Amino acid sequence: MSLAQRLLAGDRRALARLLTQVENETAEGEAALADIFPHTGRAHIIGITGAPGAGKSTLATALAKALRATGKTIAILAVDPTSPFTGGAILGDRIRMADLTGDPGVFIRSMATRGSLGGLSRASRDAVRLFDAAGYDIVMIETVGAGQSEVEIARIAQTVLVVEAPGMGDDIQAIKAGILEIADVLVVNKADRPGVDATLRALKLMLELGHPALRANIDGHHGRLLAITPQPEAHVNGDGALWIPPVVQTTATTNSGIDVLIDAIDRHRAHLTASGALATLESRQIHTELRERLRELLLRRLLEALPPDALDDAIARIQRRETTPQRAVELLAGEKEQG
Amino acid sequence: MSLAQRLLAGDRRALARLLTQVENETAEGEAALADIFPHTGRAHIIGITGAPGAGKSTLATALAKALRATGKTIAILAVDPTSPFTGGAILGDRIRMADLTGDPGVFIRSMATRGSLGGLSRASRDAVRLFDAAGYDIVMIETVGAGQSEVEIARIAQTVLVVEAPGMGDDIQAIKAGILEIADVLVVNKADRPGVDATLRALKLMLELGHPALRANIDGHHGRLLAITPQPEAHVNGDGALWIPPVVQTTATTNSGIDVLIDAIDRHRAHLTASGALATLESRQIHTELRERLRELLLRRLLEALPPDALDDAIARIQRRETTPQRAVELLAGEKEQG
Repeated sequence: MSLAQRLLAGDRRALARLLTQVENETAEGEAALADIFPHTGRAHIIGITGAPGAGKSTLATALAKALRATGKTIAILAVDPTSPFTGGAILGDRIRMADLTGDPGVFIRSMATRGSLGGLSRASRDAVRLFDAAGYDIVMIETVGAGQSEVEIARIAQTVLVVEAPGMGDDIQAIKAGILEIADVLVVNKADRPGVDATLRALKLMLELGHPALRANIDGHHGRLLAITPQPEAHVNGDGALWIPPVVQTTATTNSGIDVLIDAIDRHRAHLTASGALATLESRQIHTELRERLRELLLRRLLEALPPDALDDAIARIQRRETTPQRAVELLAGEKEQG
Repeated sequence: MSLAQRLLAGDRRALARLLTQVENETAEGEAALADIFPHTGRAHIIGITGAPGAGKSTLATALAKALRATGKTIAILAVDPTSPFTGGAILGDRIRMADLTGDPGVFIRSMATRGSLGGLSRASRDAVRLFDAAGYDIVMIETVGAGQSEVEIARIAQTVLVVEAPGMGDDIQAIKAGILEIADVLVVNKADRPGVDATLRALKLMLELGHPALRANIDGHHGRLLAITPQPEAHVNGDGALWIPPVVQTTATTNSGIDVLIDAIDRHRAHLTASGALATLESRQIHTELRERLRELLLRRLLEALPPDALDDAIARIQRRETTPQRAVELLAGEKEQG
């Protein structure tokens, strides 16, 4: 039996080996992905992102435990796009998640990168497909930080949780505006800490400022908020239903609020299905994937077709300012059509 | 006179208009970039990145003032890759930098994004070229946060300052390991605050763990550092000289340590020139740029050559699980060669 067949039959070791294959972008992994692809599209894919220190791993663990209690199987992918040097962080996650191990209904995997952001997005997407085909009901993707990289990775998910904690400074708040745009559910974790009300207020204001379904009119001179109006064009779903992200308070360490969070996730999933937004979302995700794959395939073919020194020669001419990057690229791309 | 000619003659309004053109990726902007390209390669390009709240804008302002006092002209590009919703942050930066305005030897520009990370990297690189051709001695690129996006943008620079402040938590430290890899000079700003010694120690340890010129042997089981050894293969520069990033303490609000920082920047520039690393760095940057431009050009050409519905048809077939993304891409890319 091939690894793909064994994965489909529920073999955890085959799954683990294929995860390594797709992480290393091997031909065997690519072939297996094609084999398992018809069996994907069943899992609910949940992204968990937010500032470092917000307690994402603890929340993912609490969420996984509560979902396990309902009989669902769960795969967790912990992704660190910031560095290959993540021994500490990933090790910490593993310790926090330790009481989930030993349960055959749970599979936990960490993924870091030495390569490009694009490579990590792709490996994450492929890993999610492997989990999906292996039959896990829920696949969680947890990212370490909250930058653009995490936004890209969270976009693989169907329901995105953005996790915040009380007591984060203004600068942290500012950087999170971009993250809020992708939130389906906002979680204020560590809700037993002081400052939770201020955080809730700040989040709601930022949500109103930053959410694509709402438009804020701001007095640019004084920076004051004048009014918030709904955006008619945001009603993109099949039945015109609009999802405004709920804000949920949790204390993951004591499992407080986890039931409310699961309810919010379930309602979002139901909303996606009922409104037709799930199909639209998948279509958009496939569109992004096809463009990425086409870019890479076309570049690889061109570089293979070019004379070995063509790229280096172009770089040297640009460095001597004998040509521009624009003209060099046109020449390189043109040579293929002639050759 | 064209905008490009006016820019080369030192016309600030032409520069401002061309910055908008390259930000909007217009054909006029692209043509101007080709015209000015032979006049680039003179400025020293300094990247400033680090965690939110480390005081990067204040540091950039203090640095700019001190460099102005030596007669150098300075352009500052403040880049926010996290969100289009950055009114507050960018407004704050402008207020902090207000005492630099009115000086004809200083040009400040903010850049945010609604589009992709790639688009912002490209616009930043193009903006730096415009500043360079316009004759500014120093071009500073300051990023808001410290994620992978900021790493991409900082890679446009020749000398990268990574700014840290005392009192940041362990999680913040962990996320910064990826940033440290690109540091040429480490700055501990707000050095008048408590905890500066702990931050210095943590930074030095992380530098030793994370710097490509050094290799740390870690006991994976206990997470303890066993030994740090230099990496012979890191001696990539022409003369085998190795640059170990110095750690500089500053208090930008009182200009304390700024002279030491300028000295470190100057020494790094001298190192780049003397070792041949400057040319190697530029070559690598051009290589990255050519690959990016080729990817985009080839994809655009293919999509133009394909029947209008080809991509949508492929997406629909993938959604029905009738084909896989891999096979669809091969078919789409193959159709071009036949057509």
